[in-house]
Amino acid sequence: MIRVSVVGAAGYTGGEACALLARHPGVRIEGRFGSRARSTAAVGALDLSRSDAAPLDVETLLDPRPDAVLLATPHDVSAELTPRLLAAGTRVIDLSGAFRLADPADYPRWYGFTHPAPDLLEEAVYGLTEWCDRRLDGCRLVANPGCYATSALLALRPLLPALDPDQGIVCDAKSGVSGAGRRPDAAYSFAEVSGNFRAYGAAGHRHEPEIRQAAGLAPGRSFVFVPHLLPVVRGILSTLHVVFRAPMTERDVAGLFHEAYGRAPFVRLLPAGELPELAAVAGTPRCDIGFVLREQGRRGVIVSVLDNLLKGAASQAVQNLNRMFGRDETEGLL
Amino acid sequence: MIRVSVVGAAGYTGGEACALLARHPGVRIEGRFGSRARSTAAVGALDLSRSDAAPLDVETLLDPRPDAVLLATPHDVSAELTPRLLAAGTRVIDLSGAFRLADPADYPRWYGFTHPAPDLLEEAVYGLTEWCDRRLDGCRLVANPGCYATSALLALRPLLPALDPDQGIVCDAKSGVSGAGRRPDAAYSFAEVSGNFRAYGAAGHRHEPEIRQAAGLAPGRSFVFVPHLLPVVRGILSTLHVVFRAPMTERDVAGLFHEAYGRAPFVRLLPAGELPELAAVAGTPRCDIGFVLREQGRRGVIVSVLDNLLKGAASQAVQNLNRMFGRDETEGLL
Amino acid sequence: MIRVSVVGAAGYTGGEACALLARHPGVRIEGRFGSRARSTAAVGALDLSRSDAAPLDVETLLDPRPDAVLLATPHDVSAELTPRLLAAGTRVIDLSGAFRLADPADYPRWYGFTHPAPDLLEEAVYGLTEWCDRRLDGCRLVANPGCYATSALLALRPLLPALDPDQGIVCDAKSGVSGAGRRPDAAYSFAEVSGNFRAYGAAGHRHEPEIRQAAGLAPGRSFVFVPHLLPVVRGILSTLHVVFRAPMTERDVAGLFHEAYGRAPFVRLLPAGELPELAAVAGTPRCDIGFVLREQGRRGVIVSVLDNLLKGAASQAVQNLNRMFGRDETEGLL
Amino acid sequence: MIRVSVVGAAGYTGGEACALLARHPGVRIEGRFGSRARSTAAVGALDLSRSDAAPLDVETLLDPRPDAVLLATPHDVSAELTPRLLAAGTRVIDLSGAFRLADPADYPRWYGFTHPAPDLLEEAVYGLTEWCDRRLDGCRLVANPGCYATSALLALRPLLPALDPDQGIVCDAKSGVSGAGRRPDAAYSFAEVSGNFRAYGAAGHRHEPEIRQAAGLAPGRSFVFVPHLLPVVRGILSTLHVVFRAPMTERDVAGLFHEAYGRAPFVRLLPAGELPELAAVAGTPRCDIGFVLREQGRRGVIVSVLDNLLKGAASQAVQNLNRMFGRDETEGLL
Repeated sequence: MIRVSVVGAAGYTGGEACALLARHPGVRIEGRFGSRARSTAAVGALDLSRSDAAPLDVETLLDPRPDAVLLATPHDVSAELTPRLLAAGTRVIDLSGAFRLADPADYPRWYGFTHPAPDLLEEAVYGLTEWCDRRLDGCRLVANPGCYATSALLALRPLLPALDPDQGIVCDAKSGVSGAGRRPDAAYSFAEVSGNFRAYGAAGHRHEPEIRQAAGLAPGRSFVFVPHLLPVVRGILSTLHVVFRAPMTERDVAGLFHEAYGRAPFVRLLPAGELPELAAVAGTPRCDIGFVLREQGRRGVIVSVLDNLLKGAASQAVQNLNRMFGRDETEGLL
Repeated sequence: MIRVSVVGAAGYTGGEACALLARHPGVRIEGRFGSRARSTAAVGALDLSRSDAAPLDVETLLDPRPDAVLLATPHDVSAELTPRLLAAGTRVIDLSGAFRLADPADYPRWYGFTHPAPDLLEEAVYGLTEWCDRRLDGCRLVANPGCYATSALLALRPLLPALDPDQGIVCDAKSGVSGAGRRPDAAYSFAEVSGNFRAYGAAGHRHEPEIRQAAGLAPGRSFVFVPHLLPVVRGILSTLHVVFRAPMTERDVAGLFHEAYGRAPFVRLLPAGELPELAAVAGTPRCDIGFVLREQGRRGVIVSVLDNLLKGAASQAVQNLNRMFGRDETEGLL
Repeated sequence: MIRVSVVGAAGYTGGEACALLARHPGVRIEGRFGSRARSTAAVGALDLSRSDAAPLDVETLLDPRPDAVLLATPHDVSAELTPRLLAAGTRVIDLSGAFRLADPADYPRWYGFTHPAPDLLEEAVYGLTEWCDRRLDGCRLVANPGCYATSALLALRPLLPALDPDQGIVCDAKSGVSGAGRRPDAAYSFAEVSGNFRAYGAAGHRHEPEIRQAAGLAPGRSFVFVPHLLPVVRGILSTLHVVFRAPMTERDVAGLFHEAYGRAPFVRLLPAGELPELAAVAGTPRCDIGFVLREQGRRGVIVSVLDNLLKGAASQAVQNLNRMFGRDETEGLL
Repeated sequence: MIRVSVVGAAGYTGGEACALLARHPGVRIEGRFGSRARSTAAVGALDLSRSDAAPLDVETLLDPRPDAVLLATPHDVSAELTPRLLAAGTRVIDLSGAFRLADPADYPRWYGFTHPAPDLLEEAVYGLTEWCDRRLDGCRLVANPGCYATSALLALRPLLPALDPDQGIVCDAKSGVSGAGRRPDAAYSFAEVSGNFRAYGAAGHRHEPEIRQAAGLAPGRSFVFVPHLLPVVRGILSTLHVVFRAPMTERDVAGLFHEAYGRAPFVRLLPAGELPELAAVAGTPRCDIGFVLREQGRRGVIVSVLDNLLKGAASQAVQNLNRMFGRDETEGLL
């Protein structure tokens, strides 16, 4: 049994992680933590918002020491906790953005703090499970990808070699409101969100550099990411608009996707010409991908859908946990 | 032209009041106020929550002095502002609960403060417009009814003489979330409200004594009011379950309603056996009422619907304003 | 392994039943049927609406013969299929209303057809699992209760001995739209339901006689059931308004509920004074019940919530299946 | 007074048109028609779906002859009715697609019928009001633009001269469900749409050639239009991704928009860097437009929002009616 603790268990992603781990036959939940309090029973109304983030008592967290800790904490809290947990011999899967970007110089701009443990950025494995090969096996620290980033990268990466490097890539993404977390904010109230829809993050969203980095886009390569807020609770749908190097057939494109995901248990490819819908993946650990070709195969529209709290966060963390500890990737997720 | 100022213009009901007054041919908006700031142009992100309620500068509010002020302010703010405004010769329509209950002793329990102006409670006219006769003409102070209370009372009052006084009255009410106002509260976030439904106020809601008082129910008379939170933005539907003194025909009941509302411009009676729906009144100043008889006319199910921000607040305030100043009740509302 | 077939697998409840059975460790799904077609793989766009209900080929359904058949079919289709299935030695759990009412004379009024197999009405066990004692053990035919009926009866039955027989019972119920099934009907379109709320079934809903019968209410006993349509996909919340024979304490009422459900795995009782919410049971096989006392314990407000497609249909059917075949009631449902 | 009749008054756009005309001080509604029936009072449950489209009795429609007819009818019905109405001397504003495309050869592919009156295609004025100059004055036939097309064209047309002709234009559009009209279709049921989101029209949507034509895009010019279905009732948000010929400043782009719409009463331009939201235009005759520049002004993201039933249909029809008859464009719409 892998003994796992969850920090940030009162938030949406932390709560989903707890629910998955509770049903996982190879895991024992050692503890569920909010910002200060601990509960091994049901999670109460704990709040992990930064405002009251008196330093979590790491000693409590390590007594007894779990094999792994899932951090569903604010970015800066994760950045501070992780080195101390690793030093104590516990492995970490961090669901925040604290270890996603490789360059420490990017943190002040995108996350608003100077990184306290820049030496760990190189060690951290970027946990887009389907693209990790064997790097997860036995690793100490996983940077679990952002929800938008997972959605965009799963759709984009198989096609990259076939894209025209002189043409821009557009990712027009739409997310449900649980992506904003559980917090009091009039902007996410039912009265404001119901019947509404809007783009945001116009000046640049922090998942954009994450996607650029993980896709290996050269600095001058045009990539425009525009997120929107959907009036649904769960799910992200990303519509990618790409230009191919040379005209492609549906068979060509399907071939690239099947090569990448033919054995991936949680990526489902739709027949060419069919596009996926959000409701089909809500509550599941899966990402569905479909595509349509336009202009005689010169352009493609790729659509991916996933549950932002699961494949975009908690279930991908469990996939990564399974791989870190040599278990079957699907354990606890089917 | 009646010169009117609105305090609390940044909230939902205050905003609706401003929108109605802006289109009212007989009104000039003198000022729109948040808790501290003033704006005669568009309302910005002002916040009237009690936490930052540094005393509103009444001098600013009275310079120049408007003919009337609409208070869409927290209960205690209204209770403090009203005597000062009246003293300056301005009339007041208060949309809070500060002047709805006749007995000062009820305020600590239901509103959490000791009333600072108990002498005004008797003067205040309870502004359920259709039941005010001539008391609004020229009055100085209107206590605009609560949204639930308006919904329940319009359905209940015409039937009271026909009800069995030994049998209880049940009001099972359901409201959209805008009734909770514009404020940051995770309980009203889209993620918590969407797909959800729940009863609340189980220990007693403050509109219950208001309804009892305005319906003239004797102290021992059984009346149970249970509000629920609907996943819609606007609207209240109240289902009343009543027992008649003697079996009634549909014609009998329809007669009572027509007698009460035959000339009321904003109450629409449905044919016997038809029940109204929320969407038909959202965005309108109207209350729709329908009923069904059960058990050979011994029992009745009465359903009323209205827009909590309009007939349940702002448009009823404008009806009352019109009547206070001798204008046609419908002016600015059709 | 119990070999089970599902008829009506393309509808909402049939689809939920298939999903539950697919994960059930003690069940093998023998077949999934729409109105004419059969599929042992994924369910396609089969349609079981009555209009095209050419008699299902029972021979196909019985080749090979399953141990049990779940019928998620229209009422009249169930009434016709059931005797033929029983005659072939297959047990039946019927999710329609075809065997719920004991008196054949009630079918023309409430279901619009003359019952073709009135002799089976006595044999059918009304499958409100928690109240079935040992009658499910080895029985041939289960009439799975209606969704509203399950919701009302679980809340009401424990209290019946304590209620004043001279006072009426009111059940003000609210259901999500999946209760209307998967069918093209403009009345259930998103544009009509979103932001809306309404009562319906004013002239009497067919779950009313079902509740009366299962609660054992005498013919003259006053019982008013008013269903409403909620803008949510899943879930029923029933608010019951009752009058006790003598004043009750919270401890008294809690005692009655604990006596009834202390060992029921799928009924969760809330602490006195707390009321449940719909979202807590959506997607679960559970019914949550809470209550509040009013008027010094003379009256009670009881609120129950459940998922209409699960405890109100498919998961209760699986509970019943487990009990019929001597398995643990919770198998496949945790 | 302009005497106007509306055909298709029972649909969503026809209903909105009737509501606007009823409040229009310069219009008298001569008749409201469904497919066969006529009503000068409230519109009942008339259905204009093609299936029962027995030819509307044109004689009834012309007795007495209105000055103008608004057709909110299926495309083929509009195509058949229009020549007969024009022949009788009545002017026509057609809200269907029957007269939007200039080339008769396009109708079989995009609309599924051979055009019965190809000679009228040249005469029809494409009624994107803000771009009509004086062509509406006194014209006989207006082809009211599609809802998606209005949304895309208002955002795109001012920028066309500044765009790089060798780079593609992407229009990623999202619409509420009322765009699908009032009809029984399980795909638009609340249970299917709520919590869901999907792209559709992947093989090419009929508004795409309309946009290409009205924007004057050359045949080889790359333009990709992808519509999505939002879980909201009203509104379209279009996100346009464009590449400029040369880097632009915010001032440059704002200048192009102000030149185009500085005097347009129903187009509201947001400050550079701000993007509009759907709720701000729902229920209004307005289109709001905002933009963000990316990659040092080489690329732009333009977002427009409008109410698909108003500026995307009925209120634009009234704008056009006003201009046809020499009235102020805003009459009846403020």
